[in-house]
Amino acid sequence: MRIISYCLALICAFVLNLSHAQNELKYVKPLIGTAKMGHTFPGASVPFGMVQLSPDTDTLQYEVDGKYNGDVYKYCAGYQYDDPTIVGFSHTHFSGTGHSDLGDILVMPTSGKIQMNPGVASDPTTGYRSAYQHTNEKAEPNYYSVLLDDHQIQAELTTTTRVGMHRYSYSQAEDAHIVLDLNSGIYPYEGKNVWTFVRVENDTLITGYRQTNGWARTRTVYFAISLSEPIKSYQCKKRDNGHIYRGFWRKFNDASNFPEVAGLDLVFNLDFDLPASKQVMMKVALSPTSTNGALMNLKAECPTWDFDKVVKDGQNEWLKELQKVKVTTMNESDAINFYTALYHTCLGPTVYSDVDGSYKGLDQNIYKAENFTNYTTFSLWDTYRALHPWFNLVQAKRNNDMVESMLAHYDQSVLKMLPIWSHYANDNWCMIGYHAVSVISDAALNPLSTFDKKRALDACVQTANNAYFDGIPSYIKYKYVPEDHSGSSVSKTLEYAFDDYSIARLAALTGDKGTETTFLQRAGYFENVYDSSIGYMRPKKANGEFLKDFDVLNTHQRGFIEGNAWNYSLYVPHNVPRMIEMMGGNKTFASHLDSLFTMELPDKYFEHTEDISRDGIIGNYVHGNEPSHHVVYLFNYANREDKTQAYLRKVIREMYRPVVDGLGGNDDCGQMSAWYLFSSLGFYPVAPSSGVYSIGAPLVVSAEMTLDNGKVVKVETKNQSEKNKFVKAVYWNNVRLDEPFISFQQLNEGGILRFEMTSKPQNTFQKN
Amino acid sequence: MRIISYCLALICAFVLNLSHAQNELKYVKPLIGTAKMGHTFPGASVPFGMVQLSPDTDTLQYEVDGKYNGDVYKYCAGYQYDDPTIVGFSHTHFSGTGHSDLGDILVMPTSGKIQMNPGVASDPTTGYRSAYQHTNEKAEPNYYSVLLDDHQIQAELTTTTRVGMHRYSYSQAEDAHIVLDLNSGIYPYEGKNVWTFVRVENDTLITGYRQTNGWARTRTVYFAISLSEPIKSYQCKKRDNGHIYRGFWRKFNDASNFPEVAGLDLVFNLDFDLPASKQVMMKVALSPTSTNGALMNLKAECPTWDFDKVVKDGQNEWLKELQKVKVTTMNESDAINFYTALYHTCLGPTVYSDVDGSYKGLDQNIYKAENFTNYTTFSLWDTYRALHPWFNLVQAKRNNDMVESMLAHYDQSVLKMLPIWSHYANDNWCMIGYHAVSVISDAALNPLSTFDKKRALDACVQTANNAYFDGIPSYIKYKYVPEDHSGSSVSKTLEYAFDDYSIARLAALTGDKGTETTFLQRAGYFENVYDSSIGYMRPKKANGEFLKDFDVLNTHQRGFIEGNAWNYSLYVPHNVPRMIEMMGGNKTFASHLDSLFTMELPDKYFEHTEDISRDGIIGNYVHGNEPSHHVVYLFNYANREDKTQAYLRKVIREMYRPVVDGLGGNDDCGQMSAWYLFSSLGFYPVAPSSGVYSIGAPLVVSAEMTLDNGKVVKVETKNQSEKNKFVKAVYWNNVRLDEPFISFQQLNEGGILRFEMTSKPQNTFQKN
Repeated sequence: MRIISYCLALICAFVLNLSHAQNELKYVKPLIGTAKMGHTFPGASVPFGMVQLSPDTDTLQYEVDGKYNGDVYKYCAGYQYDDPTIVGFSHTHFSGTGHSDLGDILVMPTSGKIQMNPGVASDPTTGYRSAYQHTNEKAEPNYYSVLLDDHQIQAELTTTTRVGMHRYSYSQAEDAHIVLDLNSGIYPYEGKNVWTFVRVENDTLITGYRQTNGWARTRTVYFAISLSEPIKSYQCKKRDNGHIYRGFWRKFNDASNFPEVAGLDLVFNLDFDLPASKQVMMKVALSPTSTNGALMNLKAECPTWDFDKVVKDGQNEWLKELQKVKVTTMNESDAINFYTALYHTCLGPTVYSDVDGSYKGLDQNIYKAENFTNYTTFSLWDTYRALHPWFNLVQAKRNNDMVESMLAHYDQSVLKMLPIWSHYANDNWCMIGYHAVSVISDAALNPLSTFDKKRALDACVQTANNAYFDGIPSYIKYKYVPEDHSGSSVSKTLEYAFDDYSIARLAALTGDKGTETTFLQRAGYFENVYDSSIGYMRPKKANGEFLKDFDVLNTHQRGFIEGNAWNYSLYVPHNVPRMIEMMGGNKTFASHLDSLFTMELPDKYFEHTEDISRDGIIGNYVHGNEPSHHVVYLFNYANREDKTQAYLRKVIREMYRPVVDGLGGNDDCGQMSAWYLFSSLGFYPVAPSSGVYSIGAPLVVSAEMTLDNGKVVKVETKNQSEKNKFVKAVYWNNVRLDEPFISFQQLNEGGILRFEMTSKPQNTFQKN
Repeated sequence: MRIISYCLALICAFVLNLSHAQNELKYVKPLIGTAKMGHTFPGASVPFGMVQLSPDTDTLQYEVDGKYNGDVYKYCAGYQYDDPTIVGFSHTHFSGTGHSDLGDILVMPTSGKIQMNPGVASDPTTGYRSAYQHTNEKAEPNYYSVLLDDHQIQAELTTTTRVGMHRYSYSQAEDAHIVLDLNSGIYPYEGKNVWTFVRVENDTLITGYRQTNGWARTRTVYFAISLSEPIKSYQCKKRDNGHIYRGFWRKFNDASNFPEVAGLDLVFNLDFDLPASKQVMMKVALSPTSTNGALMNLKAECPTWDFDKVVKDGQNEWLKELQKVKVTTMNESDAINFYTALYHTCLGPTVYSDVDGSYKGLDQNIYKAENFTNYTTFSLWDTYRALHPWFNLVQAKRNNDMVESMLAHYDQSVLKMLPIWSHYANDNWCMIGYHAVSVISDAALNPLSTFDKKRALDACVQTANNAYFDGIPSYIKYKYVPEDHSGSSVSKTLEYAFDDYSIARLAALTGDKGTETTFLQRAGYFENVYDSSIGYMRPKKANGEFLKDFDVLNTHQRGFIEGNAWNYSLYVPHNVPRMIEMMGGNKTFASHLDSLFTMELPDKYFEHTEDISRDGIIGNYVHGNEPSHHVVYLFNYANREDKTQAYLRKVIREMYRPVVDGLGGNDDCGQMSAWYLFSSLGFYPVAPSSGVYSIGAPLVVSAEMTLDNGKVVKVETKNQSEKNKFVKAVYWNNVRLDEPFISFQQLNEGGILRFEMTSKPQNTFQKN
């Protein structure tokens, strides 16, 4: 009883607190997810900004002696909370990915002797890196600061969309340096750096670029660095290989202070005479096109040296995004989780164009985005599930521009393919499926979408018929992907089938009956990998035989990728009724599904698995990776909405905790967070592009979402509490729902979704 | 007597012959200079074209085991006449240089088995290269053809400014291939290729780029290849290193026919079903900016598949250039030498912009040339002497655009330097001096020049005061370059002094008295390295002591570069009278100078010397390299014009022969040839920018030069013959010259320069 009272008091205080404006900012804790597998970064960024200016605590080699180095996986975002040292501050980071790249243009202020090697974490005095304490670290939206113990320098970071701003406060006036390391990067390996180029234009301006190979095969980040204090002198790290200075080393006597250098892996040290303030500030503008583009971005976007104003301007941008969904919650933790999730959904895709719209296209030519903002970093296997549907609801205009960006990518693709996993004018084709079609088809539902639907349908169809990609020709020929033709065949068949459903939906929307029919047929191919004798999806060979060697629990089972057969067998989001029917009907299915959450999964199934760990698992249900993100809602379709409601609260409580290691898996560019946002509000897009959300059970006390069309969706609860996790009834604009579904169209018109909460499982919907 | 009659008959026949139009083309023999040290290329190009499409007979490694590989020097132009095999046809070549780069986008048609390695010359069956016979080879302006013995393919090449066109006639219909090798290049070494990128856009179009390091530190050549026949299938050479296909190797099953590849060193084989003609044609467009730029150039410049028309159009362009100087000569050999020299002067600098004016600037940004054509490849240590002065006389508009290109380079230079030796948006700072100032100052004399003279003067002054370059600060401080501060100190001091004279001239022209005075003072610094005790220029240390270890004949003597002290001591072109005075007056000097041509130079002075060989030497006079190119004319200043006249004929006869090994040294981007043109016509710019030519003795019978201002300069001779190499008298517009000089201003107004030839040395000028 005391506990309950305490909780109630806390809730009341909290609800009261929220009435004060701008507290949304305070609930964002960028450090959440920075320990273990969240792979988020704690640094500064504005919403969807090109720059993610953040500390890197290590950058291990991706390959050591030609072998994959598993440890590097930790450093997808460059930062691991438990690490004792900071190497420096780099300007580009993925948020939450499970494979990585970037970490471009690393900067580190130092004092004392000149150091141009990073050194090792076990002894930071071996290089320019520094020890630091979390007690001296502060991370909030668009602001990060830390005291660098070794150098006794207070480092502060903030950004605009295309500019990273640094403020370094030295504690002593002598021997003040800044290291500029163009070799450092995330997921480095021998041969990753293709070329680097630096011009010291004058004593307060440096331009250049870093060109890398790797996940993006041909990626160049151009920069322009403006300094608040003049460089007194500078040195470039010498290489044994003279080529770095080819044309220079004979003609110019001194490797110091030489303003034009190119080579594989340039590292510079800049020396300063400190002013009375003992502060040096720098602004690092990025560009996808050129150093002149970076200079243009610098001048247009960040002409000021008022660091605090840049922080505040960016935080106001954040407020604008965060206030699109105003929630009251049962406690502060939930508010922190909600707004941090909302924050994490705004860290990607990111703007990929200069202020004048210029960007580098997939074919490496420079284009100008007309009438849209160009975005990059599409982790679509993850984000088609909830992140883009979330955008389609609350960021319709941005989502439309993201679709335009994908269509531009398609136009520039020699393969005639929409993006699979694309970043920085490249596609790394990571994971499976062609899920851009789902995002596009879903976006087409929104009346605010302005992209050309017929052009988009053509791009979808071309992509889905690609002659090169991942077993598609066999899929079309056999009506499933034969495992002996292309690996991960079951996962592919299931996801292709869903994608094909999305294409059919878009075809219907554009009135293309023939395409609709074709792709509706393909949408049914999931049935062709179902082994009714065992009740699971199972790899099938071209001769029609199922694979003999089969373990439904093994994540490394042939035929699947990043999910075992048990979980993947539930992936028919676009035709759950047929799936349930195949699996024995409502009762059998509900019981089967329930066992997913209650069974014991032996440890051996987690060995050597990057994306799935104990932290992200309940029984055999894997929330830490994407294939099962819709699964909790499947009970709804078997008339067991109470189970959906119960497991929702369980997943929310176990997989999202407001602590540094609080995320149950990679945030995956906001997908994990978008699941949280939807589920906290009481609904979820089981089949994106269907236009239907499945009703769950809200975690919030109330919410108010402002859509881009000006309409407001309110979520209200009655008797919301930790105990009352079940739903007695749901009302849309005061009309009780008799099915656990609500449409995009309904929500998009605005209205009130009201949940009556209760502590006991029951039939929520009248149809039952 | 019989011989003389024979010669006379031949001359008459020849003069007659020349009255037929368009024979100028026939006198051009692109194979001249392709053996030994000429370093010219035999392939196809239009005047000043971006594309030089030419066979490469080998491409040795520049560095082997970290050591310089001297043999590679042979392959500056990719072709050595004595080589038994052709590796392929690449699209960019320097003409006549002594260090190299380029050889981009190598293409080779093959038949039979697929081969993606070049193989070795000793056994061409080891690779795609082929044996060939000179009897099956034809080289003329904008046309080259050869029969590839191993493949029994007739290869023909032609070009437009930015497009190389190939016609391959196979002798059998089966197994027809074309190799596209982006690894191959001139002066290759491990690490030279930075990145290559290929897209097979469709079955008749390929785009991509080759990015290299090296002499140009950061150079990218973009291309678009259009094929007359569809590609049936294609393969990319596999590397052990998976990075080449990063992102591709897992997702796409087949390395064949995959249309988007990037890596360090891509090599493709294309297969064709031949049409009935058994011919495949390809057009390879280049661009300095992008593959879209290359596509634009392709469409704008070469829409046709009419190979013969492209040949003819280009040859018409050549005729236009060649007919700017119409000569009659004593024999066909002289006509061949003259027009081949004229041809060689039109192979560089080369156009470096897309058809819309876009080009890559020195800072690697894309710019648009407004109101001028952008040029690259400025081998200025060579070409300021005679090539640019030649242009200033007969190519005034082009020369103006070349100056505009240099000023754009300056604007983009972080060092605030005019080009030294620049190509493809880079400066390799090869050799010494800042001779762009001479070219600019000289160009300013031409009333057709439109560049901003004050802006140009500023660029010249900034360059000459550069704080980084090659001992300039010491030169300014000590009034000579101290050898202990910067190597090649005497060569630098002498050339800087001349350059400074040029700047003073330009300053005078713009009315900047202060700058004129400053640089006239610097122009006198040559005196500070003269050791009057021995009569030679001599390296001096900062403490004022001359270097003890000193050998006037040694080309590797400290203090000098590519010339010994004997030759270099004569380098005061802007103040020859003072030089003669220092060296003991006219008589002593003339005798001293004469000994240069008559002395014996032991072999040891040629060991390990790339740019100077027996072929280019008369006594100790080195014509095969540039520092002495003005020297023959110095007798004029000591009242011994007869010696100038005698040695002129000797140099012309020995150093320029109409055979493959007929050039006495590197043609050096046309400098050797420009010397020939001037000297054949009877005058030479000893001190460019002075506005004065020194009168020699013509080789031609007559000439008619049409200038860009429409004026015509005629050269006429009386009693011209092989024997009558001396000049009795010289008349300008019928007024006898009393000094061996004529001004730019005089010639530029048009008129008749008439030489009365004689067999006996005598006082030509009345002043004597």
